[in-house]
Amino acid sequence: MTTKPAPTTRDLDSTDPSPSRRRFLHGAIAGSLAAGSVSGTAFAEDAAANNIPPNIPEWMKAPGDAMGSQLYGAPSPFEKNLVKNIPKNLPQYISASGRTPLQDLDGIITPNGLFYERHHGGVPTIDPAQHRLMLHGLVERPLIFTMEDIRRFPSESRIHFIECSGNPVYTKPYGKTASDLVGLLSCAEWTGVPLKLVLQEAGLKPEAKWIVAEGADAAALTRSIPIEKCLDDAMLVYSQNGERLRPQQGYPLRLLLPGFEGNMNVKWLRRLKVVNEPAYSREETSKYTDLMPDGTAREFTFYMEAKSIITRPSGGQRLTEKGFHEISGIAWSGHGKIQRVDVSVDGGITWQEAKLQTPVLTRALTRFRLPWQWDGTPATIVSRATDETGYVQPTLAELIAVRGTNSFYHNNAMWPWKIDATGEVSNANA
Amino acid sequence: MTTKPAPTTRDLDSTDPSPSRRRFLHGAIAGSLAAGSVSGTAFAEDAAANNIPPNIPEWMKAPGDAMGSQLYGAPSPFEKNLVKNIPKNLPQYISASGRTPLQDLDGIITPNGLFYERHHGGVPTIDPAQHRLMLHGLVERPLIFTMEDIRRFPSESRIHFIECSGNPVYTKPYGKTASDLVGLLSCAEWTGVPLKLVLQEAGLKPEAKWIVAEGADAAALTRSIPIEKCLDDAMLVYSQNGERLRPQQGYPLRLLLPGFEGNMNVKWLRRLKVVNEPAYSREETSKYTDLMPDGTAREFTFYMEAKSIITRPSGGQRLTEKGFHEISGIAWSGHGKIQRVDVSVDGGITWQEAKLQTPVLTRALTRFRLPWQWDGTPATIVSRATDETGYVQPTLAELIAVRGTNSFYHNNAMWPWKIDATGEVSNANA
Repeated sequence: MTTKPAPTTRDLDSTDPSPSRRRFLHGAIAGSLAAGSVSGTAFAEDAAANNIPPNIPEWMKAPGDAMGSQLYGAPSPFEKNLVKNIPKNLPQYISASGRTPLQDLDGIITPNGLFYERHHGGVPTIDPAQHRLMLHGLVERPLIFTMEDIRRFPSESRIHFIECSGNPVYTKPYGKTASDLVGLLSCAEWTGVPLKLVLQEAGLKPEAKWIVAEGADAAALTRSIPIEKCLDDAMLVYSQNGERLRPQQGYPLRLLLPGFEGNMNVKWLRRLKVVNEPAYSREETSKYTDLMPDGTAREFTFYMEAKSIITRPSGGQRLTEKGFHEISGIAWSGHGKIQRVDVSVDGGITWQEAKLQTPVLTRALTRFRLPWQWDGTPATIVSRATDETGYVQPTLAELIAVRGTNSFYHNNAMWPWKIDATGEVSNANA
Repeated sequence: MTTKPAPTTRDLDSTDPSPSRRRFLHGAIAGSLAAGSVSGTAFAEDAAANNIPPNIPEWMKAPGDAMGSQLYGAPSPFEKNLVKNIPKNLPQYISASGRTPLQDLDGIITPNGLFYERHHGGVPTIDPAQHRLMLHGLVERPLIFTMEDIRRFPSESRIHFIECSGNPVYTKPYGKTASDLVGLLSCAEWTGVPLKLVLQEAGLKPEAKWIVAEGADAAALTRSIPIEKCLDDAMLVYSQNGERLRPQQGYPLRLLLPGFEGNMNVKWLRRLKVVNEPAYSREETSKYTDLMPDGTAREFTFYMEAKSIITRPSGGQRLTEKGFHEISGIAWSGHGKIQRVDVSVDGGITWQEAKLQTPVLTRALTRFRLPWQWDGTPATIVSRATDETGYVQPTLAELIAVRGTNSFYHNNAMWPWKIDATGEVSNANA
C-alpha cells in the first residue's frame, strides 16, 4: 500500500500576496504521478529581496571565484557545519571515532571527506614508497610486495559499505541523531586486487585455515580472517571513490572484507600471516565479542546482520509544516542484497513497503524512500530491513531477549523516531 | 580471445638475494585464474630498510594523528600532486576549465574534490537561503521555489557522467595525458528532484516545446532544452556523491540532463522559462555548434556519442618492465549503456573484448579492463566503445571525413597511445 500525497503549492491566482501564505491543492495535479507533491511560491514581480528575476542577486553582478582557486575542491562555505561527528568524551587514541553525518547525506555513496573513521593508535602518515606488505606463514613462497607490485595485479572495483560492529551501542541508546546512533557506517566504490590472486601467487599450504592481518598503525591492529573469506570476495584496496585511500581509511593499503564487521577490514595493512588457527588477538577476544546471558561469549561473528534506519526525517530535524514529506533512509546487510524495506508511521503497528533505489548492490547501502502525508499529530516512524536470505531486522526488545545486556556490539535493531505535534523529531528509545 | 598472462614474482628459493632481481614464473600458478598475474619480492629477514616485519617502521613507534585533526577529510600529503589539471593559457573567466586527472583514478566514481569544472564567469558563492528558482512562461501557475521547497519534493539518486562537448578539441590533438585530452569528464551519484514533478506542479500549457534554463553566475549562462527531455530523466540536483553540490558544480542547485553535453546541465540554476521555441543563446549558436564542410551548422546536438579511452597505461606514464600489465580505461555513451569495449594492442589491426565492471549503468562511466603481456617492443594501444544502440566509436579520420575541420566540438574519436621500447607512453595522434 502506498500513499498518494496531495501536492501543496502557492500560486499566482491567490488573493493573498503574502509570501508566507500557502495553499494546499488536493489530488488533481499530482494524480498522474505516483508520488507527486510539491511546495512552491507565487511569482511576484516585486520580490526584490528574493533574488529572483527580474532582480539580479549580488553574485551575478561580478565574476565569481577564478579557476585554480581550488586545485583540490572543497564544499561551499555555507556547508561548513557538515563535518564528521566526533564525540568529545572519547579517549583520544584507544577508542577514537569520527562519525558520518548520515542525516545530512543523500543516495548511497559517502563522500571521502565524510567517511567514518575509527582507530586505536591514531592515524599514521605512511610514505607509500616505503610501505611493504609481507605475506608469509603457511605458504609455499613467502613474498613481500611494494605498492607498485600491488598495483600491477589485475584490479576490480566494487561498491560496499563498511560498518563498525559497535554501531550503535545498544545498552546506551541515547544518541540524538542518526549519526550519533549509526554514524560508524559509510559506503564507497573500492578499487584493489582480489586477495585470492595474491594468495595464489604465494601458494597456500593444505593446512592453511586462517590469515592474521596486521596494520601498520601504532596499535598494530590484528585480526584473524577465515581462509574461505580470503578466497571469496576479499580485496586488497588502494582506492576509494576513484582516488587513493584517505589516511583515515588505511592509506596506502587496506583489507576489504565485504559485509564483515569494520574492525576486520584492517587498515594500513603491512602483514598477512597464513596460519591454522586464529590469533585470539585483543580485537577478537576482549573486544568485538558479545558476552551472552549464560556467560559464554559470541566470538568471530564476522557478518553484519541486516539493518536499516530512517535518516530523513530523523532525530534533531523538524518538520516545519503538515502535508507531504518523503521518508528516506538506508538499509544494508553483510549477507548480501537488501530484498525489501518496510516503513511504519504508527510505531510498528502497520507497515508499507518502501521503494528501493536501483540498482540494489550486494553488501552496499541501499537507499529507500516512501512518500508520506504528515497530519500534524504525534507519530512514531521506523524502518525494517529484510535481506536476500529472508532475515528480518529485529526490534531492540527482540534483540535483548536473545543477547541480554552484558555486551553491546552487533546491535542491528530497528531504530524508531518520535515526531511530536510541533514537528520535532527525536530518538524514541532515548 | 583473452590473454592468459604469466605471473611474475621473486621468491624465497631464489639464489640471487638482490632486491632488484625478478624471476618470472610462467603459467603454472596463474593457470587456474583467468587473469592471475603478480609481482612480488622475497621475504628477507634483514630487510630493515623496507619497513617489513620484524622491523618496525617509524610510523608504528608513536601514536598517529589524533581524532578531530580533520573534521572534513583530505587526501594523504603524499598525494598532494593529484589535483585538477588547469591549463595555464586559458582566459581566466570566459573559458576557464579544470580537468579531472583521469589517468590517476580508478573505478567509475569521480571524487568531489577532483570533479571537472568549466565556467564562463567564475564560480559564484551563493547563499542557499537567498537562492530562488523561478518557473514561468507557458505554464498554468508560475512558481518560485526556495531550496527548502525543492528538497520537499520526492527525490531520486542516480549515477551519471557529465562531459563537456569540447572534450577533446579534435583539431588540436596535442595533449600529453588522458586528462589533457578528455579530462572535462566526470561521474557522480546525483540526488535531486525529477524535473517532470516540478513542471507538473506548475502545469505545462499545450504549446510548451522548450525550456530555457538560466544560471545565477556572472555569465547568466543560458541554454534551451527540448520539453521531451525535461519530461524524461531530467533532474534538479542538489547533491553529488552524498553531500551537497560543490560550488564548481552549481551549488546549491543545478540542472542534470543525463547524456546531454555538459554545458546544458545548467549550474547555479535560477530560472526555467517554458517557451515554444529555443532561445538561440550564445551557448547554442556561436558556441557548442559544429560548422560543417558545406557551411551549415550542426546545432542542438544534445547527446554525447559513445566514447572510450585507455587511462592505464596512458600518456605520461611508463611501463617499468616487460610482462603483465592490466589495460584499464573508461567508456561512456549519452545514448544509454555501454554494450562492449574492444581493445587493440597493435594499433587497430586486431581487437580483443575487454571485461566491463558491473553493474553497467545507463549514461554513466563504465570501467573496462583487459589483461596484457607486454613483450617489450613498441606497441600502439587503443579502445573502441559500442553502446546499446549498436553505435560504434569512430576513428579520428572517420570523424573528420564527415565533419571536416572547421569546428572542434563533439569529438568522440578513438584515442591511441604509443608505447616505445623503453616503456614510455605518449599520444599517438600528437
